[in-house]
Order: sequence, then structure tokens, then C-alpha cells
Amino acid sequence: MSDSPQLRVAMVGYGFMGAAHSQGWRVAPRFFDLGAEPVMQTIVGRDGSRVEAARQKFGWQHAETDWRRVIDDPAIDVIDICSPGSSHAEIAIAALDAGKHVLCEKPLANTVAGAEAMVAAAERAAARGVKAMVGFSYRRVPAIGFARRLVQEGRLGAIRQVRALYLQDWLVDENGPMTWRLDKDAAGSGSLGDIGAHAIDLVEHLTGSRLQSVSGTLATFVEERPLLGESVGLSGTASDRRGTVTVDDAAWFTARLEGGEASGAIGAFEATRYATGRKNALRIELSGSRGAIAFDLEAMNELQFYDATAPAGEQGFTRIIVTEPEHPYMANWWPTGHAIGYEHAFSHQIKDFVDAITGGGDPEPSFADGLHVQRVLAAVERSAAAGSAWTTTD
Amino acid sequence: MSDSPQLRVAMVGYGFMGAAHSQGWRVAPRFFDLGAEPVMQTIVGRDGSRVEAARQKFGWQHAETDWRRVIDDPAIDVIDICSPGSSHAEIAIAALDAGKHVLCEKPLANTVAGAEAMVAAAERAAARGVKAMVGFSYRRVPAIGFARRLVQEGRLGAIRQVRALYLQDWLVDENGPMTWRLDKDAAGSGSLGDIGAHAIDLVEHLTGSRLQSVSGTLATFVEERPLLGESVGLSGTASDRRGTVTVDDAAWFTARLEGGEASGAIGAFEATRYATGRKNALRIELSGSRGAIAFDLEAMNELQFYDATAPAGEQGFTRIIVTEPEHPYMANWWPTGHAIGYEHAFSHQIKDFVDAITGGGDPEPSFADGLHVQRVLAAVERSAAAGSAWTTTD
Amino acid sequence: MSDSPQLRVAMVGYGFMGAAHSQGWRVAPRFFDLGAEPVMQTIVGRDGSRVEAARQKFGWQHAETDWRRVIDDPAIDVIDICSPGSSHAEIAIAALDAGKHVLCEKPLANTVAGAEAMVAAAERAAARGVKAMVGFSYRRVPAIGFARRLVQEGRLGAIRQVRALYLQDWLVDENGPMTWRLDKDAAGSGSLGDIGAHAIDLVEHLTGSRLQSVSGTLATFVEERPLLGESVGLSGTASDRRGTVTVDDAAWFTARLEGGEASGAIGAFEATRYATGRKNALRIELSGSRGAIAFDLEAMNELQFYDATAPAGEQGFTRIIVTEPEHPYMANWWPTGHAIGYEHAFSHQIKDFVDAITGGGDPEPSFADGLHVQRVLAAVERSAAAGSAWTTTD
Amino acid sequence: MSDSPQLRVAMVGYGFMGAAHSQGWRVAPRFFDLGAEPVMQTIVGRDGSRVEAARQKFGWQHAETDWRRVIDDPAIDVIDICSPGSSHAEIAIAALDAGKHVLCEKPLANTVAGAEAMVAAAERAAARGVKAMVGFSYRRVPAIGFARRLVQEGRLGAIRQVRALYLQDWLVDENGPMTWRLDKDAAGSGSLGDIGAHAIDLVEHLTGSRLQSVSGTLATFVEERPLLGESVGLSGTASDRRGTVTVDDAAWFTARLEGGEASGAIGAFEATRYATGRKNALRIELSGSRGAIAFDLEAMNELQFYDATAPAGEQGFTRIIVTEPEHPYMANWWPTGHAIGYEHAFSHQIKDFVDAITGGGDPEPSFADGLHVQRVLAAVERSAAAGSAWTTTD
Repeated sequence: MSDSPQLRVAMVGYGFMGAAHSQGWRVAPRFFDLGAEPVMQTIVGRDGSRVEAARQKFGWQHAETDWRRVIDDPAIDVIDICSPGSSHAEIAIAALDAGKHVLCEKPLANTVAGAEAMVAAAERAAARGVKAMVGFSYRRVPAIGFARRLVQEGRLGAIRQVRALYLQDWLVDENGPMTWRLDKDAAGSGSLGDIGAHAIDLVEHLTGSRLQSVSGTLATFVEERPLLGESVGLSGTASDRRGTVTVDDAAWFTARLEGGEASGAIGAFEATRYATGRKNALRIELSGSRGAIAFDLEAMNELQFYDATAPAGEQGFTRIIVTEPEHPYMANWWPTGHAIGYEHAFSHQIKDFVDAITGGGDPEPSFADGLHVQRVLAAVERSAAAGSAWTTTD
Repeated sequence: MSDSPQLRVAMVGYGFMGAAHSQGWRVAPRFFDLGAEPVMQTIVGRDGSRVEAARQKFGWQHAETDWRRVIDDPAIDVIDICSPGSSHAEIAIAALDAGKHVLCEKPLANTVAGAEAMVAAAERAAARGVKAMVGFSYRRVPAIGFARRLVQEGRLGAIRQVRALYLQDWLVDENGPMTWRLDKDAAGSGSLGDIGAHAIDLVEHLTGSRLQSVSGTLATFVEERPLLGESVGLSGTASDRRGTVTVDDAAWFTARLEGGEASGAIGAFEATRYATGRKNALRIELSGSRGAIAFDLEAMNELQFYDATAPAGEQGFTRIIVTEPEHPYMANWWPTGHAIGYEHAFSHQIKDFVDAITGGGDPEPSFADGLHVQRVLAAVERSAAAGSAWTTTD
Repeated sequence: MSDSPQLRVAMVGYGFMGAAHSQGWRVAPRFFDLGAEPVMQTIVGRDGSRVEAARQKFGWQHAETDWRRVIDDPAIDVIDICSPGSSHAEIAIAALDAGKHVLCEKPLANTVAGAEAMVAAAERAAARGVKAMVGFSYRRVPAIGFARRLVQEGRLGAIRQVRALYLQDWLVDENGPMTWRLDKDAAGSGSLGDIGAHAIDLVEHLTGSRLQSVSGTLATFVEERPLLGESVGLSGTASDRRGTVTVDDAAWFTARLEGGEASGAIGAFEATRYATGRKNALRIELSGSRGAIAFDLEAMNELQFYDATAPAGEQGFTRIIVTEPEHPYMANWWPTGHAIGYEHAFSHQIKDFVDAITGGGDPEPSFADGLHVQRVLAAVERSAAAGSAWTTTD
Repeated sequence: MSDSPQLRVAMVGYGFMGAAHSQGWRVAPRFFDLGAEPVMQTIVGRDGSRVEAARQKFGWQHAETDWRRVIDDPAIDVIDICSPGSSHAEIAIAALDAGKHVLCEKPLANTVAGAEAMVAAAERAAARGVKAMVGFSYRRVPAIGFARRLVQEGRLGAIRQVRALYLQDWLVDENGPMTWRLDKDAAGSGSLGDIGAHAIDLVEHLTGSRLQSVSGTLATFVEERPLLGESVGLSGTASDRRGTVTVDDAAWFTARLEGGEASGAIGAFEATRYATGRKNALRIELSGSRGAIAFDLEAMNELQFYDATAPAGEQGFTRIIVTEPEHPYMANWWPTGHAIGYEHAFSHQIKDFVDAITGGGDPEPSFADGLHVQRVLAAVERSAAAGSAWTTTD
């Protein structure tokens, strides 16, 4: 690896996703043979002292407060965008137009229009060999990659039903505080956009199908929450010290799929932060004419597979511990039976992104994939506003 | 028990439900102290030789081919109706008007109008002390009874989300034959009415709430199936020997709940015969402000309970094996840890029905409860026909 | 069935096992086509008023206080022995010598000598076509029968390791009362004989192998327990009102197996009433060169099967819900996915016993099988007394 | 962290453990505030080209082929020993005597005598403030740490029974090749020492008790295996090309515990590489008078806890997902519900080791703890050789 070219990275943002991406950049080259050696060169954030603390914490060489400077810096090869969704479009477009490869956290943008502009920039960039990728990291969970392989090999047959739930519970306490994530102006969306987006992307990734139309419902269970000191500026008056929740607490939608292995299938989706006791339960179940799979992110190293072609009496869901060398990415990790954790979806994302940069392929998911997810989210919102009327996603 | 009065029973029907009800009548008095001793007097069916075979098989004293005769027979106290749904209204109304107590399998009737007439008959009968009950037997699964108690005690707090899925897979094979259950004229409904009805009743029973409006979708995945010899009379022509499936294969609906412990909650429902690998998975999950429960009929002796008021760090779903003397019905069965089976939902149903007859209470679920379920089913069908528009259930 | 010959049964004993056997006699003919129709003729117990109450409760025609009378009664065909182990030998030998078929609860006897005499009587009887069977009912759990079939078909290959645990927890409370079950004079043995016997029999049944030698350890964790009023006669003085526990609370042993599919294997056994939280967890795990099975009685309708010949990456334990028509006994029960309960191990036991009587076969497990289990138990006790020295079982 | 003193590390060995330790050194300072900043200075191995490859792969600054040089190097503060067990004593003693802090992989040594010499060196070093720690990394799995806290708080009451199984299956295929791990001269021990040692250490860590005496059994199921080309030098002749397995394939032992929370308890232990289908199943179950815990390394982010003081009817094993801020180490990782992987037992080990160095405490487990485990292993071997006679461990 000492002879590998270097890939100098600047990362914008230093929150939860900044920590996860940093770990990905740090770890990926230690377990995978990459065509280039990533250099964790610069971390960017608006608050100087915070970004310096993050620099030390996450292990970057330099800190910077203005993202424009790293885009102007010819020594930077890659811009990794982990800042809030409202900033994605401006940064990504500038970076791509400056010839930087871009990895952008999901959601691609807070608006469909923003996402469309990003896709256009990505197309311009692609013509020059510059890569753009959106960070639906769960695609890189080995159990998901293995499930996809089973689907592509026809082991599920024609998929007729899909269930995709993303269940969390951090809003169950009605006296939990108001935060920017519950304010539509700041966050854009609630459960639907934040976690429902993952469910949409995974279903499309696994099946190769697209959600063509949706019928959706949104709900806000707790409409006002206590304002904390730092919540100044949110809606709500100072006198009652309560803020108004302006995003969805939970979302449900039914979708018709087209193309791929689930053409003609119906999918049931749910995204919620009120599923008491479920901490991070992204559950996918695909039911086909020849088999089925079930996955739960709370047991991320396992895949349940049902082979409906097995002899009568021997059928059942097989709990496959996805730590074998035959499973995606796992030959590079520990011996069989040794689990990997959440963060390595990001390590694998870096591996695949660097492979695309050095190998010449097109990284997936593309900005176009990210735009499509935004369109599905927008269609769900329109459907919900129209009494759950079926609404096309394009 | 030798001093108990007798309760002479006639049962109409001898299919799967006839077998289950027979076992309930036979077993209940051996494990519970009933106020009257049931006598399995007469089994009724139209086909003389088949009903005689069923009489011997199920252990009834007499066989009869005309249900009117047992209604006219003053020696009969109870009519237990297990015949197809299309026959329920006529038999039940005649029986009630003749002063017989009636236990009627679900669905109460194939039409809302039929169910309404049955409710009227039940009200007339009630005025004379004659009892009517509809057989949503899963209410009598001990884990369900225990879950209901937890809800009523406030252990879940305000319930905001409900998920109720009834998953089976016996239609997955697209070359499986056409049967009367897939013909709307004969069966009335598909997955929605057959198994979705259980999901509706259980949610209402557990929460004390009512589904007030619904947005639904129905799908038929396999539209034609091979006709077998005995399928003559079904739609489809002899030349192609394929019949047309005219009921839903699967149903999804979202519901708004009112009243009870889940007032204001949203419920997500699904009923399907295409959930590959799921044999009889009736799954209920209730998420509240103070706790949650999860139940799966495939592990019917277990209840998962999450106590959100437990100390931080100690919370989790507790797998309660529902075989303790503290659990409903279980003090009368085996020592702790010894499972009971599917059939004893029926044993418990008989116990509760006989208790109502001898003790003077009103049996639950009432015909009015059964009518309400029919109205929900009808609302789902109307909503599905109207592009999933929200539709009230009353 | 009306044309079937009758099989008139007398049952001795009316405790927990009496209830279970009664249910077996009652239910078996309703779900299985038997060559003879059992008649629940007489229940026998020493206490006149208690046996009469049991007669009514369990549904027998007559009650009797002297077991010798039913043995002398030419109208009785079968003696079913559910009384305490100390009475088994005398009753069974008398019954067999009188030409009655005998079903005897486990343990066969409280002493090896008693069991040997019973085997001799069974051999005398067999020469005259009279049947004898010992009631290791768990052999008739469908998941166990199915596991045995997999073993016999070679699906596990050469079995090298066996683990058999029977875990209960009803003695965890050290202030729980002294009972006759904890007194060696009355009970003969503690966990070892009561529940460990089941583990031994199941392993031998599943593998076709015999435990040839053992190294064992016994422990009594709580040596004195409060005497209740009814405990008079147990060891311990009235003044301190505490009784001395004289049986084992828990037993562990390692065994070498010979013959059958597990020849040369090592088995690890444990039987305890102190496994906090485990109510009735009889767990069997067999590990072979080609596959493995795992079973837990707390989920009695499931079998976990691992096929080590499946493609790399697809291996895992398959949770087979043992309710398919292909599974032992299950074609006669409910549709797929509908659980049966603990009691039907007894229903199946009656079916197989009646089949042996009417069909001419030799019922299994035989009295010789029961004697062998007693010898293993005795060898464990001898080994424990000799500092866990390896001890042969014959 | 820029102001932290540096801690310059040399690591000896570059196999599986070298990879895991490297990841620990790399990652720990990014997630925990350490009192010193580790510098991954030198990796040491005998083969020059291999160690250089490992240097690049694992991310160390220098490579070295002679471990004596890093011990002589005043710039090195810490020696991390991951080389084979036979080399541990010599390296560790030299390092400690040279004033280097030592982290030594388990087993501490291949012989009790070697381990005793290491303990003496550690005691000499401790007098000078030099730290020594043995790498039983599983102590640092958060679920284990949390279980220990429950035990220490008395939530299990008096622990009476312990079950500790370490189940793997990589020797199931009898045609799998002979390797140095199966040769006693090279490996010292088989399953017993390699994985059984973890079970012993964890039980002692969790309970605070010591295994005071043992009764053990060892078995070798497959006595000869094919020799591969690289196996030259192992026992077996060239003509038959099969080598003789001279270590145990599996080990079972029963132990009496003294001191701590499990004083007077009996433990059942098993270590095997023949548990078909179990990849890395280290299972611990502790049963006490007030509660129980169950852990399985194959689901390492979960702890099952049974509270026997909960209300009757509500007891059951609670599946606690050990990802809450209240759980050991987890406040420094991801949001609730996000799993960590196997490797972070090593990250936590580094954190605790550095804390001991910079904070002045004594690291645990100490070399004395490691010596005690070796004595238990030796006692099991002596007991097995003496027909499972009970053998004291000191």
C-alpha cells in the first residue's frame, strides 16, 4: 500500500455522521486492499473551536471553517459531505464542478429541486471522470448484500410482497424536549425522510425494482414539546415555553413496485420514532414464489432465509450468521462467527467508493438513486395531504 | 359435576371448525368447573354419510341432516354454528328466536345486512335471557388475555401505534388449485375477511378502541389457477381448465382508532396468504407511552412485554412464558412451563360461553361486536375500490 | 369406530399424571383411527372421596379404591399406572400376570431390583401377547419424532457430541416448603430421577445409542426447608419445623455412548430445579459430522436443524415449525402452523400403545428400556458417591 | 488530545490477534479520552517480508524482526505480545524487567511454570510502577461488563449454578487438514486451552469466585488428519501422509466455586470445536436465588436478564440490547440500538490498559489471574488423566 497513490479527503460536518465517516476512512484501508491510500486531510465545520475538537477526536490533520476553501484547494481529491441536508446541494455542486469526487450523506437534499440540480452536476462531472455517490450506507451491511445476491440469483422467485419497517422509540416520552429535528424548517422532514428513506432505498436495492406509486399517511402524536434553553428560535412562544412539532412523528405507506425482481409487488412501509422498545429496528421482509428473506438491523450480522423449494417438512427460516468468507466483505474481517458492528457499513462504503474512483466504475447508489428516493418521499407527503390517494413517484 | 344441570348442544357443521369446536365441548368440562355439564348431543350436516362419519370421529351422540330439526327440538339448549358464513344468519336467527343459546363462528355473516339482522335477533333473545356470542376464539389465547390485562392496567400508557399482521403462505405456489375459498360468490372475501377479521377483533379487544376509519388496498397476485375435478361450478371454462380468483389474495389497511386505550392511535394492518414461510403468524404489536407488547401466534404461549418505566439500561422486551397460574385460564392446566395448543382457545371459549349462560352475564364478543368487524371489512373494501380514500366504518 | 372392539381401561393414580393420561385416553380416539375404542372405565385411588372427585373431573365411569379389584376384573383390558414410583412394580407385575396390558409411568420403579422384576414379568406376558410399555411420553412430541427420523436418515452423520439439559426452577426460593418430593424415602431421587431420566431416554431414543458409562456429580444447594403442616412424617423435628432435603437438587454427568448413530460420542447431561427462569426447558442438542439438531421443550412445536452439507454461506440453523403433515402425528391435527400442546405427547402415547395392542407389535419404550434408564441413574449415583469416577451402567 | 503525553507501543506478532490488537490501538483513542496518545510505533515478527506486509496492512510506523531490539529501545513504552504462547514468558519477563508496560495475549504461557515466572516478573515490575495485563478481551464486551454489574449489585442473589460453553465447529469435517494447532508440542492444548480458558476467566470475572476444584474429561474425536505440504515436521509419516492429532478436540468439566457471589456453586463447562453449526458461541448462564443472566457471544450486543423478584406472571428473560449510555463503554459509541463488533473488546482493553498506565491503577486481569486460569486448565488435564477424579486447582 505504500506504493498506492494517495487520495486526499476533506470532510464537511462533524456530528454523528462525521464520526461514522471518519471511522470508515480510518479503518477501510486497514482491512481492504484499496487502489489508493486515503489521507484524512481536512475536517470542515463552521464553529472553529468545535471543529478543532472534532479534528483531534476523529483524527484529521487539519481543521477548516469554510468549506469553500477545501473546494478551492487543488490538493484535495474528495469531498465527503456530512453536514445538514439543507447544505448538501450547494456544497456538492460546487465540489463536483471543481472536479472533486463527492460522497454525500443521505438525504441527497431537502427538496426535490435541490436533488435535481445535484444530479445534473453529477452528470456533468461523470463526463469528466469525477464520481458522485450518495451515502445509503445500509446497502453495505453484509447481510443486505448477501440478501441481494439471493434475490438476483432467483432464490426468492417472483417477489410479491415487501414489508419494510424502520422502528425507533426516542420520541415515546411526551415530555422529551423540542429539538431542531422536529422543526420542519430545519429538518425538512421527520421519521419519513430521516429513516423511511433508508427503507425505500434498501427495498429498491434488494429487489432492483422501483416504487412507482404510493398511498401514504403521516401522523404527529405529540404536537407540543418543552422548549429547552437552546431551542430559542423555534416556533412556540416564550411564555408557554413549548414548541410546536411541525414534522411527522410516524409515516405509513403502501407502494406498488415495478421492474426488477418485485415487479407487480405491493410493499408496506412504516417509519416511526414511537415504536416503544425498538431502538434501531430496520426490518425488511421479502416474500417470493420460491423463497423469502427477513432482516432486522438490531441483529445486523444475521439473515433469515426461507427456501420454499426445500423438501416438505424441512422448510423453515434459516438463521444465517453472515460472517463467512462467502459473504460480501466478510473475507477481509475476522474468523467465522465474529460479529462486525454498525460502523463498518461505512468502512465498506469507503471501500466501494474508492474502488469506483480508482477502478473507473460508477459508484452506487448514484445521485440519481438519491433523487428518486426524494421523489418517493415527496409523493408520500402529497398522498398523505390528499387523503392517502395513490400518487405516482415520478 | 354430576349434580350440575346439563346443557344439550347441537353443532351445525363438521369441517375444520367443527373439529375444533367439538374438542372444546369435550375438553372444557374436564379442566374447568362449569355451571352446567355440556352434552354433545347432535351434530348436523347436509350430507348424511359424511355427518355420520363426523359424528363418530368427533364423538357426538346423534347425527342429523336438517338443522331445522335441532332448532325445533325442545331437548336442545345450545346451537353451535360452524357451517359456512353464508348460512350463519338464517340458522342463528331461527335458533335465537326459538330460544336456543347460539355460539356462531366468525365471520358473523357474509354481508353487513345479514349481520345486522343477526344483531336484531340477538337483542330480542337477550331480552328473554338467551345468549349469543361470536367465535373470535383468539381472544381466549392466554397470552392475549394477559396482554389485555396489562393494557387495562395502564402498563402501556397511551397506545399510539398498533401493528396487526396475519401472515399465511398457502397460496404461494401459483400452480396451487382453484378452490371455493378463492371464489367470491362462495367465500365472500379472501384474506381480508378470513384472517384479517381476526386481526381487527383482537386489536379492538386488546385496546378497547374501535377502528373508526380506514384506508385500504387489496391485491390478487395470481389471477387464474388450475381447476380440479371437484371445482366444477366455479368460474372459468372447461376448455382452459383454469378458474378465476375473484377474492383478494392480500389486504393492507391503515386505520384510525377511537375510544379506549388507543384513542387517536394509528394502526397498520395486513392480511395475506402469500407471506412465504409464515404458516399462521398472527402478529400484534402495541406501542404506548409507558410500554409495549408483541405477540406472535406461531409462539402462542409467549408474550413479549416492554416496560418503558424500568430503570435505564435494564429495559428490553421480556419473553413471558404464559403458563403461570397468574395468567388467564392457566391455573386450570398443567404445571408452569407446559404449553397448551391452538385448540384450547376453543376450550376457553366454551368455558366462557357456558359461564355466561349459567351465570347470567353477557358473553363477549357479542353479535354487535361481530357486526362491527363486518363493517370494518366492508369499509376496507370500499376504500380499496375508491383508490384508498379514507372511509368511515359506521 | 362404532364397529371397533372396545378396550376397557383402568387407571391407577389421579395426580398430575392421572390428568394427563386421562386427556390422552379421551382425545386420542377423536384424532386418530385406532384399532380399538378405549373405554375410560375405572379410576383407582386409595382415598375414596378424592378418587370420586377425580372420576368426575377426569371423566371416568367408575371409581375404585383397591387396585387389586381392577386386576381381578375380567372386564378390564388395560391397566394404566400413574401412581407413585414405589407402587409400580407390585401393580404392574400383578396386572401383567393377570393378562392385562400395562402402560406404566416413568420411572419404571424406584429401584433397579424392582425394575428387573418388572422386566421379567413383561417377558412372561409378551409370550402370551400381553403388552407392556413405559411412559417416556416426550418420545411422542412430534419435533422429537422428526429429529429421530433425521438422525436415522443419516442427516447428522456420525454424532460426536450430545448435550441434554432438563432445566426447571421451582426450588430457587430457599424458603419454599419441604415436600415429599425432597425426601429420599418417599421420592427415591431428586432432579436426577425425576427429570434427568427424560433426558437419558430421549438421547437414547434419538440416537439409537446407549449410555455405557458415566461420571457424575450431585448437589443439594438448600439442605433444610420449612415444614408445612401436612409435612408431618418427614425428617426434621417439630421443634425447629424444618425438614432436611435428602435428595439431589441438581445433577450433572458426562457419558460415553455406544452403538447407534452416536457410537463413541460424549454426552453432557444436566438436570436441575434451580435454573432460575427456566420453567420446563428440556434441551437436546446433537452435533454430527453432517448436521446438528437443537430442541427446547419450552418451544415444543419447533425443531432447529443445521445442514452442514448445504452450500457455504447458506448454512444456519433452520427453525422448522413442526406442524406439517409430513411430521410425525401432525397430519391428524390442525392445519399447518397451528400448535399442539404438552398433553398430546400423551395422546400420541395412547395411539401408539393401542396400535401395539391391536396390531401385534411391540410397544416402545419397553420395560427393558425403562430398566436401562434406571441403571444409568443408579450408575450416576454410584459415580457421584465415588468422586465422579467413571462407572459402567450395566 | 494534542497535549496528551505519547505512549509508544511495540507489538510482537502479526496474526489474527495482531490484527485485532492493531485495531484496538488505532480506534480506542478516537472514541475514548485517554490519558496518553498511543503511537503505533513498531511491529515485530521473525519473517522480514511478512512483518513488513503486516506493518503496511495494520498501519504501524516501523517493522522489526528481533523482539529484543524493541525491549532495548528506550523510546518504547509498551510491549504488546500477540505471538504464540510458547514465546510469551521470555518476551514478557524481559520487557517487564526492562521497565516496559506489558499487555500479553492469553494464554499467559503454555506451562504453569512459565506463567509463575511471569507473575514474579510482574510483581517486580509493579513495585516500580510498571503495569502488566493479560488479554482476556471478552471481559470488555459491554454485555459482560453489564452482567458483572448486575451480579455485584446482588440482582442475581446467591449464584448456585453456572454454565459456560464455548462452542465452535471448525473441526467437524474429518478430512479437514492437520495443523499446528492440533499438535501438542506446538499448541500446548486444544479446545481446552484455546477457548475453554475464556470460559473460565469470564465465569471468575462475572462472579468474583474461583474454580477451586474440577472433574474433567477430554476427547479427541478424529485422531488422524491429512497432512498438507506445509505440515512437514508434524507427527505422522510421509508414506501415509496423515498426522496424529495430539490435543483435545473437546473438553468438559464440572467445577466447584469458592468466594465471591457464586461461593458453593457448581459450574458446568464445555469447550469444543465440534459443535456443528456453532461458529463462536461462548455461552454463559448464571442462575441465582434472585435472578439469572444468559449471554451468547454470537449475539454479543445482547444480555438476557431474568429478575426473579418481579411480580408473578411478569417474569421472563428480558432481552436487553446493550447499546445504551448506561452500559459499560457504550456512552462513547453510537446512538442507542447501533451494534458494535467483536474488535471493540480490544478497543476497550486498550482504553482500560492505558487508563491503568496513566491513572496509576492495577490493570485487570492481572498476570496472577492469568496464572490461575492456567492452573485450572492443568487441573482439568490432571483430572481427565485420573478418570475424572476431583482435582484442586491450586
